[in-house]
Amino acid sequence: MSKVESNDPNYSALLEHVRETGYLVSTAALLEWDQQTKMPALASDYRCEQITHLAGLIHQRKTDPRVGEWLDHLADSPLTEDPLSDSGATIRILKREYEKSVKLPAALVMELARAASIGQTKWVEARRENDFEAFAPQLKKIFELKKSEAEAIGYAEVPYDALLDEYEPGAKTSEVAEILEALRGELVPLVTKINESSYRAPVDILSRKFPVDQQRQLGRLASERIGFDYQQGRLDVTHHPFCTEMGPRDCRITTRYDENFFSGSFFGTLHEAGHGIYEQGLRSEYYSLPPGKFCSLGIHESQSRLWENLVGRRFSFWQYFYPEAQSLFQEALGGVSLEDFYRAINHVEPSLIRVEADEATYNLHIIIRFELEQAIINGELDTDDLPEAWNEKYKRYLGIETSEVASGVLQDVHWSAGLVGYFPTYSLGNLYASQIFDAASAQLGNLDAMFQTGEFAPLKNWLNREVHQLGQCLSGPQLGEQVTGNGLSHEALMSHLQQKLVPIYGL
Amino acid sequence: MSKVESNDPNYSALLEHVRETGYLVSTAALLEWDQQTKMPALASDYRCEQITHLAGLIHQRKTDPRVGEWLDHLADSPLTEDPLSDSGATIRILKREYEKSVKLPAALVMELARAASIGQTKWVEARRENDFEAFAPQLKKIFELKKSEAEAIGYAEVPYDALLDEYEPGAKTSEVAEILEALRGELVPLVTKINESSYRAPVDILSRKFPVDQQRQLGRLASERIGFDYQQGRLDVTHHPFCTEMGPRDCRITTRYDENFFSGSFFGTLHEAGHGIYEQGLRSEYYSLPPGKFCSLGIHESQSRLWENLVGRRFSFWQYFYPEAQSLFQEALGGVSLEDFYRAINHVEPSLIRVEADEATYNLHIIIRFELEQAIINGELDTDDLPEAWNEKYKRYLGIETSEVASGVLQDVHWSAGLVGYFPTYSLGNLYASQIFDAASAQLGNLDAMFQTGEFAPLKNWLNREVHQLGQCLSGPQLGEQVTGNGLSHEALMSHLQQKLVPIYGL
Repeated sequence: MSKVESNDPNYSALLEHVRETGYLVSTAALLEWDQQTKMPALASDYRCEQITHLAGLIHQRKTDPRVGEWLDHLADSPLTEDPLSDSGATIRILKREYEKSVKLPAALVMELARAASIGQTKWVEARRENDFEAFAPQLKKIFELKKSEAEAIGYAEVPYDALLDEYEPGAKTSEVAEILEALRGELVPLVTKINESSYRAPVDILSRKFPVDQQRQLGRLASERIGFDYQQGRLDVTHHPFCTEMGPRDCRITTRYDENFFSGSFFGTLHEAGHGIYEQGLRSEYYSLPPGKFCSLGIHESQSRLWENLVGRRFSFWQYFYPEAQSLFQEALGGVSLEDFYRAINHVEPSLIRVEADEATYNLHIIIRFELEQAIINGELDTDDLPEAWNEKYKRYLGIETSEVASGVLQDVHWSAGLVGYFPTYSLGNLYASQIFDAASAQLGNLDAMFQTGEFAPLKNWLNREVHQLGQCLSGPQLGEQVTGNGLSHEALMSHLQQKLVPIYGL
Repeated sequence: MSKVESNDPNYSALLEHVRETGYLVSTAALLEWDQQTKMPALASDYRCEQITHLAGLIHQRKTDPRVGEWLDHLADSPLTEDPLSDSGATIRILKREYEKSVKLPAALVMELARAASIGQTKWVEARRENDFEAFAPQLKKIFELKKSEAEAIGYAEVPYDALLDEYEPGAKTSEVAEILEALRGELVPLVTKINESSYRAPVDILSRKFPVDQQRQLGRLASERIGFDYQQGRLDVTHHPFCTEMGPRDCRITTRYDENFFSGSFFGTLHEAGHGIYEQGLRSEYYSLPPGKFCSLGIHESQSRLWENLVGRRFSFWQYFYPEAQSLFQEALGGVSLEDFYRAINHVEPSLIRVEADEATYNLHIIIRFELEQAIINGELDTDDLPEAWNEKYKRYLGIETSEVASGVLQDVHWSAGLVGYFPTYSLGNLYASQIFDAASAQLGNLDAMFQTGEFAPLKNWLNREVHQLGQCLSGPQLGEQVTGNGLSHEALMSHLQQKLVPIYGL
């Protein structure tokens, strides 16, 4: 780790400028967090104006010509000698972001912001009314604008590359597609076998009565125990759970409680806490600068999935936590063995809703969205034909279908908010999580023995050191390679799923 | 009420500029609200940077030379013909604020923002540790900066004028001092007589057990019933209660609960709701412009005091609410007569803590602070000598003293937050409240008959029309004169206190 500042006045000016932009970006994050969690009902119109205004100021600062001048002066600086050093990465990434920002006409940026804002309102209504037609024109408009965005930015092979790059810098559509196809190739037969198996996990126990106060208590306890620091974070309730940060020591996660379902809030809280542990593990002295920012959405998701699934659904994790859970939920779990509970939380079954899907089928939900949004952006599918294409793929990959668009193509907020190219990062996260967990196991020894006794700090500290503190110095693929010694592939995830599911379902 | 916009391009440009500044001002209010209510403990340093940066941007916009140019172009515009019209007031007040802003160096503005943000953190620690020395250097710094501010702005008679003018535009220290001295002259003998009286109100009933959930319920019910709209507001818990707004439909109040004390949260909630009703009663189409902003802090406080004391401690108010209170607090109040409860909530007795003081002695707490901060700003007292000066005055005016700085000079947040010149507006508020309530009574008829049946809308609507919707078109004294037909004096308040307290204490 090198010193943040240098004697180069251009570098200092650049860092100061970016840090000041960071004050606005983090303030905008508070406006949005508050909008989701605390804001009074009638305040939304003005809140939209505040956010839009701040977005304008931020874009103005990002495209400030002085940024280009500072970067030009720094082009041959010794600070860039090692491109993976803190200063090298800072200059390299700020240059990439600046060049991208100035390619985007301000009018397009604003039109996209407006289309996304209207889109979310229209999507909420359309989903409530189960009416795709009501959303179709706005959806078409959003995808058209995203196509214009892709053209403005430019791409190597297909327009979708430009959008994917926003969330997974340096990733190529063709490479991601290849990996996800290989995953699909092994996942579909595994899920089919599980479905055909005669064993059914006792999932009904998870739908007993779990009082919300106790759910909150257990979620808070577990998230704290795995390493989420509530001295620099908090947990609130929202309809759509998320993790956000509005400062180097201010990371906020949310969850939702259903008195009649255990897994939603518990694993949701672990998931968001995993994101939060990543944010809290970034180097605060580099806050808002590339070495202090998360690497990519795929890597971010790897951290949430690792804690949610690879740790949180592990037998050894529950050897430690189950007595606590039983004492909190005596009525629901008092008579349930640890083994039955473990099988229930790992049950696999095709279902319609992505956010409620199990660890295995989840990836098929993602692959469907990834294939569809690629087809639209690359001009092979019209948004008006989405409901049919959606159902066709659900039938083919998951063996299920629905006539309800509310639980079909309208179930996710992403497209309505202009987030295209975002979905595949969820599965990349699952893939990275498995590889990173295996690497941690190899280096740290018997993780299960640690989990059994509630020792999560060795894993968390290892992740802090090996993943979090690198920030954006390495790209996602570079980081994966360095941490795991291998390129990204579907193998670790498939092996992990098989090792867990084959014994449960007696395949 | 006139149309907001006009055809004058300079006026339109000015309004747009001020509205955009309003996005930042209201965003800063959210940063501060969150700091008090929700922010994780370790986030305060960065929050301080965010607030400071935003304060800098706001100052930059307020002193933008274009504002001066637009105002110059508008100097002889027909829009200024009636100085009390919406456009006339807008131009007049924006001109006054611009001229004041350009006198303040940006560095001083930002230094003040930073000192206040640090000050609040240090104050919390120092108060917790009951340690004046730990806060003394920051307090001295804040007062030094406020002196610089006063010198930069300029003043007619004494430096304190410049600071008072920030909260009570147009008020002169000498005039306020004269009124408050007259008040003190009558208040001290009244309080002494009450202390010497043989009757003691049954105050112990207010220290029985009042479960927090029920306190929350009653506070919410009463605040809603008198007119605070929770569709455009919310109520949270903070150590130091306050009211703030971060948009035309986003007004937030706070309170604190003590299970063993009824009055704190109940009257605190009514008080903050009174502030909130004022904010919610402003004309939203003028949000962030002078006709849509509160007149002065004195007038603001008149609205909170009116609902807290003149309505909320009235016999007729409790004729309506007492059955509800009894049913919520059966154990504490089940056997207490309405008459005894009424006497208890109106009990007068010198005490150490301002925010817990009764309606009469409260003003002596204010007069002490007013005298002390004047002495510091005008160079007659050193901040290091504050604890002694504080105790000396408490002994003289209230007959009590304390060796604990936590319940003495460190009890209030104001000075730590750079709010100097603010305290007297609390007593101005009490004075205005009495005069305004008398005017409402004269115009609306038998208010007690309305309150007895839970009818608070006539009074609230009258205040909306006669006070709130005027915004800043009139100054505080002008508004007081227009609404009450009289200049400000101590007489209405003293008469109100005597009419209530003489029968209770049999004086």
